[in-house]
Amino acid sequence: MATLNAISDKTSIAQDVEALHLAFKGLGTDVNTVIRILGHRNSDQRQLIIRAYKDLFQGDLIKRLESELSGEFEKAMYRWMLEPADRDAVLAHVAINQGRKHYHVLVEIVSVLSPEEVLNVRCAYHDRYKRSLEEDVAAHTTGDLRQFDILKLGFDFEHLLVGLVSAFRYGGNEINAKLAKTDAEILHESMKEKNGNHEEAIRILTTRSKAQLLATSTATEMIIAYPLPSDFHKALHTAIRCISDYHKYYEKVLLNAITRIGIEREDAITRVVVSRAEKNMKDIMELYYKRNSVHLEDEIAKEFHGDYKKFILTLLGKEI
Amino acid sequence: MATLNAISDKTSIAQDVEALHLAFKGLGTDVNTVIRILGHRNSDQRQLIIRAYKDLFQGDLIKRLESELSGEFEKAMYRWMLEPADRDAVLAHVAINQGRKHYHVLVEIVSVLSPEEVLNVRCAYHDRYKRSLEEDVAAHTTGDLRQFDILKLGFDFEHLLVGLVSAFRYGGNEINAKLAKTDAEILHESMKEKNGNHEEAIRILTTRSKAQLLATSTATEMIIAYPLPSDFHKALHTAIRCISDYHKYYEKVLLNAITRIGIEREDAITRVVVSRAEKNMKDIMELYYKRNSVHLEDEIAKEFHGDYKKFILTLLGKEI
Repeated sequence: MATLNAISDKTSIAQDVEALHLAFKGLGTDVNTVIRILGHRNSDQRQLIIRAYKDLFQGDLIKRLESELSGEFEKAMYRWMLEPADRDAVLAHVAINQGRKHYHVLVEIVSVLSPEEVLNVRCAYHDRYKRSLEEDVAAHTTGDLRQFDILKLGFDFEHLLVGLVSAFRYGGNEINAKLAKTDAEILHESMKEKNGNHEEAIRILTTRSKAQLLATSTATEMIIAYPLPSDFHKALHTAIRCISDYHKYYEKVLLNAITRIGIEREDAITRVVVSRAEKNMKDIMELYYKRNSVHLEDEIAKEFHGDYKKFILTLLGKEI
Repeated sequence: MATLNAISDKTSIAQDVEALHLAFKGLGTDVNTVIRILGHRNSDQRQLIIRAYKDLFQGDLIKRLESELSGEFEKAMYRWMLEPADRDAVLAHVAINQGRKHYHVLVEIVSVLSPEEVLNVRCAYHDRYKRSLEEDVAAHTTGDLRQFDILKLGFDFEHLLVGLVSAFRYGGNEINAKLAKTDAEILHESMKEKNGNHEEAIRILTTRSKAQLLATSTATEMIIAYPLPSDFHKALHTAIRCISDYHKYYEKVLLNAITRIGIEREDAITRVVVSRAEKNMKDIMELYYKRNSVHLEDEIAKEFHGDYKKFILTLLGKEI
């Protein structure tokens, strides 16, 4: 279930736009009004607001928000205002350009989403960057490869990433139990082996249907703690986790962001909350409570502050 | 331009279905009626006929045609009656299962079609075979690989094919001339080198937009006669030719089928004519005449016979 408390569709978009315009006026911004409005509108409503703002004030609302707001709050609002596929295209692009340690975001996006949703992200990527997503992924991983000069695992890393991005998985529920067993063994071997032959593991993970992969990952315990000696192994691990149970995966991303102090913790919180507030954030929050015996919203209230905290809690359905 | 002479949309589908039903009745089939009707209906009309036949006679028209007709004529009619994306899914599936020397059909399909059309083929493949196209391509090329034990080129072959099948190319017209030049050099090297590093060539050919690849293949003369020492090189060559100028490619396929006697020549003729009769078969025929100084229809009339010949010539817009 979603956590977003969106108001009814009968709301007046024109009134919203007028109120936002007023909130931007004069010195300083009436941030509370901005959060009160945009933190309670669903994706369709936000797109209508963007269009109405353009019609009424000949301005780009997203750009205006960027100039009115700042820091992590601005970043979160920017992501929130984009349509889901466009947002994921931006997140993927940022991850690709930030280098190897951000590639898990890319793996996460294409492994969590449905085949059709991944396709929409690829279309949005075309529109925005005038290249294909797989083109940028391949170009960047190849670049890294030369730099790091760990040839075989470098190739494997590139093939896995490009394969995950390019996959258009069959969406049916048919399962081949025998195949699941042999696939599981191959994936298991690949996770254990530093210098193994990973071609088969890549083939399995980038071409099988999700239902089949789910049967595969239950056929053996894939998500046990492996040492993950390379970026390839990390990507393989992330993909398996996202495909097997992305609620659990997101719960872990949030837990890490809450408990580990670092400059990029807001990035993770924002990504999960903004992506999931209109989908199944409530389920992720319940899982978080079940596993950690603390409420996610309490942790966020404790760890963060200011407008950013206000906005994230609003998206989590917790008024303050 | 198309060669199919489809009758106007005001035609009575019910009359068509009745006439086909009559043509099937009794001993033998009234083949001329079957050709007269189905050889003059466009894709939408044929689908309506299939549906109306089912409603009226509770039967599967395609299966009925298979039992009424035989040989290469039956095969051509079967392909003709399928919707374009479904037909290409079938052609791809047959090619994959017939082994390495038929892979050019797969490369041809995914290289000639637009990104959206390839996607439709992948969807049709899901519906029909309950697996993804890339899954079957990867599984079969891997199988061959073990058998032939030419490891590196085997991997390259698999990566190229899976990459071509999975590509969702950017469809815009922007061109980077500098990139085209360096890409052309890499592709050139790869075509020349038997044991080279083909990773970069694969990356270029499977991720760039068609406009960019077109600029690339004009930047250097890619289609000159290379020795093509391996299946990898053959696939690379076919993909470049199909992307650069598929009219010319098809003209060559037809010429080979006409001039080289072999059991599979009808396969090639059928594939090109059935796929292109509603699209741009006229342009391909004109090119054929320009390059060979003989009319394709005259060659087909000379080389083939019977109902097969009648049907193909009908699709080429040549009544007999």
